[in-house]
Amino acid sequence: MSVTIRAADVGDVPALLGLVRELAEYERLPHAVVATEASLAASLFGERPEAEALIAEGEEGPVGLAVFFSNYSTFLGRSGIYLEDLYVRPELRGQGIGTRLLAEVAKRAVERGCQRLEWAVLDWNEPSIQFYKSLGAKPLGEWTTFRMTAEAIAKLAGA
Amino acid sequence: MSVTIRAADVGDVPALLGLVRELAEYERLPHAVVATEASLAASLFGERPEAEALIAEGEEGPVGLAVFFSNYSTFLGRSGIYLEDLYVRPELRGQGIGTRLLAEVAKRAVERGCQRLEWAVLDWNEPSIQFYKSLGAKPLGEWTTFRMTAEAIAKLAGA
Repeated sequence: MSVTIRAADVGDVPALLGLVRELAEYERLPHAVVATEASLAASLFGERPEAEALIAEGEEGPVGLAVFFSNYSTFLGRSGIYLEDLYVRPELRGQGIGTRLLAEVAKRAVERGCQRLEWAVLDWNEPSIQFYKSLGAKPLGEWTTFRMTAEAIAKLAGA
Repeated sequence: MSVTIRAADVGDVPALLGLVRELAEYERLPHAVVATEASLAASLFGERPEAEALIAEGEEGPVGLAVFFSNYSTFLGRSGIYLEDLYVRPELRGQGIGTRLLAEVAKRAVERGCQRLEWAVLDWNEPSIQFYKSLGAKPLGEWTTFRMTAEAIAKLAGA
């Protein structure tokens, strides 16, 4: 199947949300998706886009996506790129589509002078871990991400 | 000692770089800091700031910092805040300065409608882990961050 990688636009929002929901199913986090078409449209294609999205498009429509944004390192004194999502439909894996999506993100990192490209992987997702290692990515095993959700944030903000 | 929390400005760049270097020493990563006063000034206080910085200022100058930027979640369909650095000089710890810095970041999260505040902690940094847990933050233990550095990025971009 011929697959094209291109920047997503606002017309892709329904397809993007569908792929995000499939990704959440795959990550065993189906209830984590509270985004709507309206919130994705506003946050990705509004006046001040909060992230960028690439679509892998097959003959019958979108089959994969990459969503990324700029992060920042004080140690480097510059921005890098953080890959929030990378997803390819299960029936289309093994054809290099994920590599092509990630390569497009890497091209943007080079163009923007970014020296780091980072993302997070679930520990049990061994196929992805092997794929990422094969591309030269290294796990930052010594670091753990901590998250504060709305309730804890509000409590701390009022302290 | 009286300590004030305020937004950093370009005049704080030398102090910020000094604190970032102290943080890197504490994290046993002293050689990881390649930022210069020029790169911090350009990236934090240039035309398009890539992150925001808060300073904790004592009577004799800056004694702590918080640096943060907007991240993005497709699952939420909105931005959160990522805390890149939080640092208080060792001799001033235990006085609530770290909590006050983090509370100022949490206030901005509330103002901006962010439902997540995230950051990374080194596994051996038990005092910080206990501090963060006491504030209601949860470790995302199932996730590992992967990083691609300049060489791997360039190779993938050219693939």
